[in-house]
Amino acid sequence: MGELSELFVPRRVAVVGATEREGSVGRAIMENLVEDFDGEVVPVNPNYDEVFGVPAVAGVGESDADLAIIVVPPHIAVDAVREAGEAGIRNVVVITAGFGETGSEGASREQELVEVAESYDINLVGPNSLGIMSTPTGLNATFGPDNARSGNMSFMSQSGAFITAVLDWANDQGIGFKDVVSLGNKAVLDESDFVETWGEDDDTEVIIGYLEGISEGRTFIDTAREVTQDTPIVLVKSGRTDAGAQAASSHTGTIAGSDEAYEAGLEQAGVIRADSVQSLFDAARVLESQPLPDTDDVAVITNAGGPGVMTTDAVGSSRLSMATFTDETLDAFSEKLPAEGNIYNPVDIVGDADNDRFREALDLALGDDNVGCAVVLSAPTAVLDYEQLAADTVELQEEYDKPVAACFMGGERVEPAAEALSDAGIPNYFDPARAVDGLDALSRFKEISEREYDAPTTFDVDEERAREILSAVEGRGDNRLGVEAMDLLDAYGISTPDGDIVDAPADALEVAERIEGDVVMKIVSPDILHKSDIGGVKVGVPNEEVYDAYEDLVTRARNYQPDANIIGVQVQEMVDLDAGVETIVGMNRDPQFGPLLMFGLGGIFVEVLEDTTFRVAPVAESEAHEMTEEIDSAPLLRGARGRDPVDVEGVTETIQRLSQLVTDFPAILELDINPLVATPDGVQAVDVRLTVDPDQL
Amino acid sequence: MGELSELFVPRRVAVVGATEREGSVGRAIMENLVEDFDGEVVPVNPNYDEVFGVPAVAGVGESDADLAIIVVPPHIAVDAVREAGEAGIRNVVVITAGFGETGSEGASREQELVEVAESYDINLVGPNSLGIMSTPTGLNATFGPDNARSGNMSFMSQSGAFITAVLDWANDQGIGFKDVVSLGNKAVLDESDFVETWGEDDDTEVIIGYLEGISEGRTFIDTAREVTQDTPIVLVKSGRTDAGAQAASSHTGTIAGSDEAYEAGLEQAGVIRADSVQSLFDAARVLESQPLPDTDDVAVITNAGGPGVMTTDAVGSSRLSMATFTDETLDAFSEKLPAEGNIYNPVDIVGDADNDRFREALDLALGDDNVGCAVVLSAPTAVLDYEQLAADTVELQEEYDKPVAACFMGGERVEPAAEALSDAGIPNYFDPARAVDGLDALSRFKEISEREYDAPTTFDVDEERAREILSAVEGRGDNRLGVEAMDLLDAYGISTPDGDIVDAPADALEVAERIEGDVVMKIVSPDILHKSDIGGVKVGVPNEEVYDAYEDLVTRARNYQPDANIIGVQVQEMVDLDAGVETIVGMNRDPQFGPLLMFGLGGIFVEVLEDTTFRVAPVAESEAHEMTEEIDSAPLLRGARGRDPVDVEGVTETIQRLSQLVTDFPAILELDINPLVATPDGVQAVDVRLTVDPDQL
Repeated sequence: MGELSELFVPRRVAVVGATEREGSVGRAIMENLVEDFDGEVVPVNPNYDEVFGVPAVAGVGESDADLAIIVVPPHIAVDAVREAGEAGIRNVVVITAGFGETGSEGASREQELVEVAESYDINLVGPNSLGIMSTPTGLNATFGPDNARSGNMSFMSQSGAFITAVLDWANDQGIGFKDVVSLGNKAVLDESDFVETWGEDDDTEVIIGYLEGISEGRTFIDTAREVTQDTPIVLVKSGRTDAGAQAASSHTGTIAGSDEAYEAGLEQAGVIRADSVQSLFDAARVLESQPLPDTDDVAVITNAGGPGVMTTDAVGSSRLSMATFTDETLDAFSEKLPAEGNIYNPVDIVGDADNDRFREALDLALGDDNVGCAVVLSAPTAVLDYEQLAADTVELQEEYDKPVAACFMGGERVEPAAEALSDAGIPNYFDPARAVDGLDALSRFKEISEREYDAPTTFDVDEERAREILSAVEGRGDNRLGVEAMDLLDAYGISTPDGDIVDAPADALEVAERIEGDVVMKIVSPDILHKSDIGGVKVGVPNEEVYDAYEDLVTRARNYQPDANIIGVQVQEMVDLDAGVETIVGMNRDPQFGPLLMFGLGGIFVEVLEDTTFRVAPVAESEAHEMTEEIDSAPLLRGARGRDPVDVEGVTETIQRLSQLVTDFPAILELDINPLVATPDGVQAVDVRLTVDPDQL
Repeated sequence: MGELSELFVPRRVAVVGATEREGSVGRAIMENLVEDFDGEVVPVNPNYDEVFGVPAVAGVGESDADLAIIVVPPHIAVDAVREAGEAGIRNVVVITAGFGETGSEGASREQELVEVAESYDINLVGPNSLGIMSTPTGLNATFGPDNARSGNMSFMSQSGAFITAVLDWANDQGIGFKDVVSLGNKAVLDESDFVETWGEDDDTEVIIGYLEGISEGRTFIDTAREVTQDTPIVLVKSGRTDAGAQAASSHTGTIAGSDEAYEAGLEQAGVIRADSVQSLFDAARVLESQPLPDTDDVAVITNAGGPGVMTTDAVGSSRLSMATFTDETLDAFSEKLPAEGNIYNPVDIVGDADNDRFREALDLALGDDNVGCAVVLSAPTAVLDYEQLAADTVELQEEYDKPVAACFMGGERVEPAAEALSDAGIPNYFDPARAVDGLDALSRFKEISEREYDAPTTFDVDEERAREILSAVEGRGDNRLGVEAMDLLDAYGISTPDGDIVDAPADALEVAERIEGDVVMKIVSPDILHKSDIGGVKVGVPNEEVYDAYEDLVTRARNYQPDANIIGVQVQEMVDLDAGVETIVGMNRDPQFGPLLMFGLGGIFVEVLEDTTFRVAPVAESEAHEMTEEIDSAPLLRGARGRDPVDVEGVTETIQRLSQLVTDFPAILELDINPLVATPDGVQAVDVRLTVDPDQL
């Protein structure tokens, strides 16, 4: 592919299927292009000499364009793209629908389109796209009714209708865009490509989007991580709920990954996930224009006590906190404010405050080193001029270069002030909670932009031995492995209790004698999943009973299922569960994100309380460590209720080693270590279950 | 007091302190009254013959008014109220500030005001109030800049500034009010009084408010319960967070109750608690105008797939669910909709849908018995006329009398349609999530309005014996009781393990022999709170060791604290904790709501996971039962992980019996039963601690 950034700065745009026919897409695009585009437009249509007075060519090959917009019917669209490729055009937007979204014929047509794009190295948007826009050159290659205002957000959407709705609304709100792209079916270019491109674009201050799926999760994470060191990404990813996921899947025809995977993947990518259109734009607007706060401490300056309390509640439920002023600031407030005011945060400058008092108070607050950002909050009064307050707010925000949120409450009388604030990048809200949400987004992005992504640790492991153990499933007609695969963990340095699988009672006794002390014995058979249910597990077996126990376990298994494939009996060192905490470390594969690691405390914590956390593998040490911190029951690992803290580092390392194992072997489809017992002295994987795809070994 | 409803329908209003002085409150109120009030206005001021051309009287006693507004300075305000009372005026609004909010002098002045109001049977609003409004008569007895539009919400606020801000905004939004009251210091009339009055007012369709505290929690609960059988109440109660609670307390000077108490109390009262100004009005607007849904099943009709998915997500995260259409409806959709549409919910009628198709689809959906309510969702297109869509939506909403939410997306082009929708009581939002929130509020209120509040059960208990046990604290210099008060539980029918407190080793042995089997022995001393820490608890003591154990326990206690008051040793039946679930039932007293019951599972669940639930006592059976259901760990009571369910009815009854105990004895300041062990066969209170105020016995 050529440089994708060129897609948005064409010199000459060919519209393949241009026409003046009323109500047609070809006409709408021609109109939009002719109206605003700074470059040249070439209609391509063998039936016309000109379209809207612009001379037409018969084929895209003759257009000498560097961007082709395809609106011809699906059965000739692929040929048009090929012709564009032949002619050296490296940027193509396929508006035409009737591809992957419409069944098997469409799907094979889309496959053909992909092949053509690949063979000619084409940056291809769509098919089934509304088109693209780029405001610096006035490029509007969409068939939507509105062009975007100029601004510094770049916007991608998997729904064309959402773009038309947003533009219509945003134009009235004074919200502008740099580039806009309707992703369509994402046959070639997807969200990761645009994230990467906009990350390098100096005119894009914030990347926003609406997605129903992410095509390649890992690529997206790696790309977005890099970009979000500088440029914030705020996304609505729909399908948060089961009902929504089902609707998304029926809308786009893609297999939805689990929302756990999206939640983990977006977090790892440094993306701010918005759960509504309102919060998407509330966050994007402040991120576009305001500086990041040095600290999360908010000063609230208000002429209205009640709304001040509401604002404090909003701060209390955000990641921010109320600033504590320095003594100097408090002294200054004492001097300047009337006695019935409040010099502590929220600063109540009282209802009779005029503009001078408001300005003075905000000046003092922003000048305090303990203050990271401020909310200017005001109810309408007879002595206060909102436009002057807006001007003062803008001036002081710029002077101190600290973020400021505005909540000038009221109706029409606020409008001129709100407009002045908005022009300076300070959105005004009637609801204090929304003003605080904006500051919260800034703080969140500051944390993201300061992240250091360490590389996953590579442990010294025995990959060959692991491969051998996994190969046990080959030709066995059953892809599941159980305790017979404990050595797999051992090969990857995950400690397991001493023990062995044996197939004779005498060997069992030998192992037990080696271990010293009582042992646990378990039947080992791929056909017996729930060993305990058939009495297939014996705990605390003394040496003298090992022989009989072996016989008994085998007999029980035979009685349960006469033709069961019995591999033998596992004889294992006793692990004192009471001395430790049972945890579960697991993995399953997500269609979009690949290996998804899970961590939680065993028993009721995962099964009843659903207290779990997820990360896309491979994970670095810091990510594995976070997993042990962010579950609700995390204090239990750290010595709650007077117990000794367990070896959390051992848990962290086990998560990382599992991460390496499942990354090395895509053949492992699912794996659960349950329990992984963590004690103050270390961790031990007591049981394991996995499913292996032999074809991927 | 006279009928409070008369406050809002005065015939003749006296303004005590009326003046034309620029910038004065007395002028502002006169202007507001003269401008809009249908009745008569009487300025009261000995210094003027007339104010704004209206003849003045020298004293309120000569006014012949039925409502007096007091704006004179604080030192003469009380006298003015007395004079009004003398003259038979039963409704007074004290605008004047400088009472309880300003220190001890103000507080005693406020006390005097209360006494005057009581002795003359006056409905008194304030002091420190912005005033009151009532739109049917044009009454605006406030000093705010705006009068309210006419509507069917009645609005109370503990912040006057919030009223001025809301009115300014609401007037532009087309939101109207019936009555408005600025509660001020709530010296006499408080939120419960207005809830009661508006509950009986046919013109009030919804009650909204901003509160920083609730004066008498139990009265509020009982009043609001009755009112919310018909009339919804939506409140912002600030102080949700610690920071907010602190700010609220410094703003109003009242001791804040805990937010757990407010959360429980508002829930028990049937109040919908909004956590932002936006959600307050979003909920209130639909509750004012729309019918309640028969079912919670939502149909989404859209011409835009992406926004349809977002709406489905919003439904998925609400209490609502997506409707499943009947076969007839699906057949009809199949027939009428294009093949590329989606006949399942969300119904995608595709981007080229005209108004006829939209109307037809909405008609089919609303006509389906499986559909309780609908969202009409639309992106702007060339073929769709939003005003026509609004007209169709309003018509079909009325025809089917099912609630409908609108999300016509776009900017200015939506405005005329949005206005038409709003006039018909259907607010339009750009964000689908907000449209769904409105339906959610309707569903929530439907549940509330259908509640049946059963009376608390009165158990047959031994109140006299309980009083005797509690009296143990009298003259003891320590208000805490421990296991020596186990009999208190017994007196209220809460089962405890067999056992006794003895003060000699021989008696200990006697009790142990009676119990049969091993026993638990605990030192009993008000001076030793943490018995286990000093080795003051022995578990599983066989009869032959009881004698020595007694001596040992006493020795340990003496060694720990030589002058400890040792009451004796408790010898108790062993309770097998493994066979059951440990729970905690507790109570403490909230300054506003009184006895607040707590329930949770013992150990880590309360201490680490903070998995608790609260109710204001007394509770009915249904409320006690809910407590056992709504904690996260509730499944553990009901036989999670293959265990037998415990006696949940026993737990429920224990909560109720405790509720009765703490209601009967206000002297009990705090009480914890920890653990209350619940097994499949019953419950047993194993340990108890309480604090008693002997002065209240």
